[in-house]
Amino acid sequence: MEEQIINLLRNTWKTQTNAVSEYFSKNADDFYSQEIAPGRNKATYILGHLIATNDGLLPLLGFGDKLYPELDQYFTPNTPWHYDEFPPVAELKAKWDTLNQYLEKQFDTLTPGQWLERHTKVSPEDFALDPKRNKLNVFIGRTNHTSYHLGQLNILKN
Amino acid sequence: MEEQIINLLRNTWKTQTNAVSEYFSKNADDFYSQEIAPGRNKATYILGHLIATNDGLLPLLGFGDKLYPELDQYFTPNTPWHYDEFPPVAELKAKWDTLNQYLEKQFDTLTPGQWLERHTKVSPEDFALDPKRNKLNVFIGRTNHTSYHLGQLNILKN
Repeated sequence: MEEQIINLLRNTWKTQTNAVSEYFSKNADDFYSQEIAPGRNKATYILGHLIATNDGLLPLLGFGDKLYPELDQYFTPNTPWHYDEFPPVAELKAKWDTLNQYLEKQFDTLTPGQWLERHTKVSPEDFALDPKRNKLNVFIGRTNHTSYHLGQLNILKN
Repeated sequence: MEEQIINLLRNTWKTQTNAVSEYFSKNADDFYSQEIAPGRNKATYILGHLIATNDGLLPLLGFGDKLYPELDQYFTPNTPWHYDEFPPVAELKAKWDTLNQYLEKQFDTLTPGQWLERHTKVSPEDFALDPKRNKLNVFIGRTNHTSYHLGQLNILKN
């Protein structure tokens, strides 16, 4: 039964991830340099932020280093950044696709029991006190994080 | 193990739902009559839409009739509506809170096996072909739907 539920969750992840890919496939790259609303983030910023965030799943779930640590300077919260230094949209789209394919392969390796093990940022002692701090919970949270920003992207009519 | 996973999912639902409640508790009611971005939905519209959508879980998951069917005329997609006929924000906030408490009580009654049973809009024959069309999958989808609109609400700085 737990395998069935994890498959539902992985499908939901894919649906949200694919919806982001589709959003960025509808228009010429220039379109996505627009702000989603006056004075708010550009669509490209949100894409970069989603890459940097989901890339962080690799170390957090114990799969190794980030693929694109060079993006952190632009796209993780509380780092100073300037729009004119942004990586080009085409580069971000390619990294988004490569990251997603790579993550799927890593996710495939986990058994249901392993999904429920602690993630790498919680100590065994803290995990014993709060077993919700497992890999699957991080995955569920990141899926909702993608949905959150997808809602914002769709403010900019595509 | 499946009970543990369902608890994670129920926690995520609560986190997203509470974040919406918190969003609407920060300012005077008038504030939420603003559009989240020029020409886009008002924050109150999104709240009404979340109520109407989540209220739909009652019939869909087999818990009975909607609590607030009168909201459908305003807040379900493809219905004509006019902002000046909207229910007041205070009324929507009260209905949101009541609905959430009521839903929690209903969710409490389901065993893991029941969460994986078909929802009421799929026939036994279609469910046999695609067992993903179960109650839990609807619940996961609705959680992400709340996150999607929460991202939009946060475009309007609160």
